[in-house]
Amino acid sequence: MPKIDTDAIRAAEHVDADRLWRRHMEMAEIGAIANDGVNRQALSAEDVAARRLLLQWAAERQYTCAIDPIGNIFIRREGLDPTEPPVLAGSHMDSQPRGGRFDGIYGVLAGLEVLDALSDAGLETRRPVEAVAWTNEEGSRFAPGAMGSAVFTGERRLEDVMEIRDPDGTALKDALAETLAATPECTPRPFNFPIAACIEPHIEQGPVLESEDRAIGAVTGIQGIRWFEVDIRGDAAHAGTTPLGARRDAVQGAVRAIEALNRLTADPEDRLRFTVGRITVSPNSPNTVADHVHFTIDMRHADLAVLERLSAAMAETCARAADPCVAQLRETFRKDPAVFGEEIVETIGRAADALSLPMRRMPSGAFHDAGFLNDVCPAGMIFVPCRDGISHSEAEYASAEQLAAGARVLAATVFTLATR
Amino acid sequence: MPKIDTDAIRAAEHVDADRLWRRHMEMAEIGAIANDGVNRQALSAEDVAARRLLLQWAAERQYTCAIDPIGNIFIRREGLDPTEPPVLAGSHMDSQPRGGRFDGIYGVLAGLEVLDALSDAGLETRRPVEAVAWTNEEGSRFAPGAMGSAVFTGERRLEDVMEIRDPDGTALKDALAETLAATPECTPRPFNFPIAACIEPHIEQGPVLESEDRAIGAVTGIQGIRWFEVDIRGDAAHAGTTPLGARRDAVQGAVRAIEALNRLTADPEDRLRFTVGRITVSPNSPNTVADHVHFTIDMRHADLAVLERLSAAMAETCARAADPCVAQLRETFRKDPAVFGEEIVETIGRAADALSLPMRRMPSGAFHDAGFLNDVCPAGMIFVPCRDGISHSEAEYASAEQLAAGARVLAATVFTLATR
Repeated sequence: MPKIDTDAIRAAEHVDADRLWRRHMEMAEIGAIANDGVNRQALSAEDVAARRLLLQWAAERQYTCAIDPIGNIFIRREGLDPTEPPVLAGSHMDSQPRGGRFDGIYGVLAGLEVLDALSDAGLETRRPVEAVAWTNEEGSRFAPGAMGSAVFTGERRLEDVMEIRDPDGTALKDALAETLAATPECTPRPFNFPIAACIEPHIEQGPVLESEDRAIGAVTGIQGIRWFEVDIRGDAAHAGTTPLGARRDAVQGAVRAIEALNRLTADPEDRLRFTVGRITVSPNSPNTVADHVHFTIDMRHADLAVLERLSAAMAETCARAADPCVAQLRETFRKDPAVFGEEIVETIGRAADALSLPMRRMPSGAFHDAGFLNDVCPAGMIFVPCRDGISHSEAEYASAEQLAAGARVLAATVFTLATR
Repeated sequence: MPKIDTDAIRAAEHVDADRLWRRHMEMAEIGAIANDGVNRQALSAEDVAARRLLLQWAAERQYTCAIDPIGNIFIRREGLDPTEPPVLAGSHMDSQPRGGRFDGIYGVLAGLEVLDALSDAGLETRRPVEAVAWTNEEGSRFAPGAMGSAVFTGERRLEDVMEIRDPDGTALKDALAETLAATPECTPRPFNFPIAACIEPHIEQGPVLESEDRAIGAVTGIQGIRWFEVDIRGDAAHAGTTPLGARRDAVQGAVRAIEALNRLTADPEDRLRFTVGRITVSPNSPNTVADHVHFTIDMRHADLAVLERLSAAMAETCARAADPCVAQLRETFRKDPAVFGEEIVETIGRAADALSLPMRRMPSGAFHDAGFLNDVCPAGMIFVPCRDGISHSEAEYASAEQLAAGARVLAATVFTLATR
C-alpha cells in the first residue's frame, strides 16, 4: 500500500479553499436559476460556457487540454515521464434542470485545484495528472446519464447515442458537434487510453457524513441496483355493496405486498436501500375497489450476494402477501455493484488520516462516472458532506471548508498515486 | 304488523315471470351496446324511448299516467278510495354509460308487473297503487344522481339542478324540456304529494344473496357513508443514497396508515365497508423517495354510531401510523344511514316467508332513491340476487325466476300495504 509522504501532505496544504470556492461561485453564474440553483444541462449553451471558463483557468497555468469524440475534457499537468498513463481526477459539469452548485462540478474543480496545488507547491509527479470533465452524467437532457464515461470505457458505443434527442427534438450529434466546435484549443484524444488511476470527488448526496460529523467518505464501491415492477391484480367492485371478505382488493393486496417486502428487506445495519417510489392504481376511483395496482421497487446494496438473495425471494413474497390478489413481478434493470480496488480506497483513507480529517468507508448509493471507469482502470471516489443530504435541488450546499477538505485528500491521493 | 293474507298471495301468484322477463329484454334493446350492455342515460333519446315504451304498456291496461316537473313518472292503478295516498313501487330507468339490463329498470318493470298482477287477479285495493320511475338516479350524465327523488322530496331544489350540464354542454333544463314534451299523455303532478308507502325493488349489486342462496333481501336501510381524503407528507430523497432510517417516505407512511386504518375498522361481522380506492403518489418516480401521498377513504355502515366512532378516531390513527411523516385527514362527504321503518321491512319479510322464498334482512351498500323517499314516507327496498354481485357493467345478470321472485314479494307487500 502506498504511504502518504510529506510531499503528498504539502500538495494537500497548497489546496486553496478560497480559490476553490470562488470558482464554484463563478461556475454557478452559468445557468444560474432562482434560489442559488443551476440549470446547466449537457451540451447546452450553458455547458459550453462552463467548458470555456474551465479551459480559461487551465490556460492561465499553461496546462494542455484534450477532448475525446463524446466531449470528455482532459486538462493535463505533465509528468516527469510523459509516456506514463495519467492519474485522472474529476467528475462532470452538467447539472439537473433544477440542480445545485456542487453536484458534479465540485469534482471537476477539485481536480483542477489539485493541478494548481501541485504547481503552487512546486511538486513534480512521475505520471501526468489530469483533471477530467465527463460529458452528460445527469442524462436529464439526453438520456441515459453517465454517457461520457460509458462511451469512453466502451460500455456504450458512440454511434448508439448520436441520434438520441432531447425533449425539444435536438439530436445529440448536433449538440455535440456545436460543443466540440466551441473548444478548438483542445487536441483530439481517443477513447479508453491507458489510465493509471481515476479518482472522482463528489458531494455525498446523502446524510451519512453530515450526521456522523465526518469530513471524508472513502467510497468502497457503488451499490448494485435492481429495479422491479410489480402488478397486483384483483377484482373491481362496488365500495358500498361488496363485503371485505368477498373482495380481491388490489390496493390492499399491494399494501400487504409492500409490508411483506419491508420485512424481507429489513436490514438492522440500514445499508440496504429499498424504495417503492411509484404506485399507480386502477380505476383509482374513491368508491370502486381497485382491480389493479402497479408499483416499482428500487433496491440497492453494495453486496451482490445480498441483492441476489433478496431478488430471488421477491416474487414469492409478493405472491404470498397479495393473495387472494395475483401478483406478478419482473426485473426491469440491474447493475451489479462496482467494487473499488482496495489500494485506491486505502490510499484515500490514509490521506484523510494523514490530514487528520475524520473519515469513514462507505458505499455510494448513487451512480457515478467512477463506476464505469472502474471497469478499465483502478478507480475510486471521495465523498464530502452536503447539507441535509440534499442534492438535485437548488438547496444543495457544501461549505468552502468541506469542499477544500475533500480537495486536500484528493491532492494527497493523486500525488501519491502519480509518484509511487 | 300487517298480515300477508290469501289475496296478497294471490296477487303474488299472478306475477308473470315471462312477461316480466320479456319486458326487460324489450327495454334492453333501447340503448343496447355490445355484450348485453345498455347505455340509456338520463333524459337522453334512449331514456325518452324507454319512457314511451313504459307508457305504451300502461296504456294497454288503461292505467292513468302522471309526471312531475323533474320528469318522475307515476303509472296509477286506481284504488277503491281515490282520495287515499297511493302506495308506490318502482325505481329508475336510466343506466350507466356502460350499464346492464337490470339496474333500475327492474324496479320500474316490477312495479308495473304488480299493477298487471293485481289486474289479472281481479283484486281491488283501498289505496291506489302506482308504479314509479324516478328520473336520473345514476347521475352519470347529469351529476349528482338520485336527482328525481331528491328534488321530489325537497332534498334538492329544481332550480338548483336546471343549469347542470352534461359533458357535451347540454343543460339539464333543455334535456328535461324535451323529455317532458315527449310524454303529452301524462298529467302534471306536483312534487312531494302524500304517499302511503314506497317500495323499491332492485338487484342487490353485491354478492351476499347469491352466496347465501337467498331469493330476497328485506332491506333494513341504506348504509351511511363518510368520505375522507388523507394527505401524507414526507421528504423527497434519493433512493440510492438516503438510508431508510433517515427517510420520511410518504409511500411507507401511507402504507402504515392504511394498515392502521384496516385494524381500526376491522369488523368480524364483515358489515363495515372500508375502501381505499384512490392513491396518488408524488413525484411518483421509481428512484425518488416520495414526499407526498394522497389517498381516499370510503367508509359505510348501517349504524350511525359506528360511523361516528370510527370517523372520530381516523385522524389520530393516520397521524400515529404515518409518523415521522405528517398525516392530514379531512372529511369530504357524509350521508347518515337511512333506516327503513320496521313495518315495511317486516311486511316484506313476511311476504317472502308466506311465499316460501329464502330471505334475509340486510342493509343496502349503495345509494338508492328509496333513501330519499324514506324522509317523506314509509319506504323500503326489496333486493334480488345478481350474478357475482356485478352491476354497472354489461355483465350484470339476474335470471327471470330471480326477478319474478322479487316481483312476487313486491306484489304481496304492495297489496298488503294498500289494503291494510
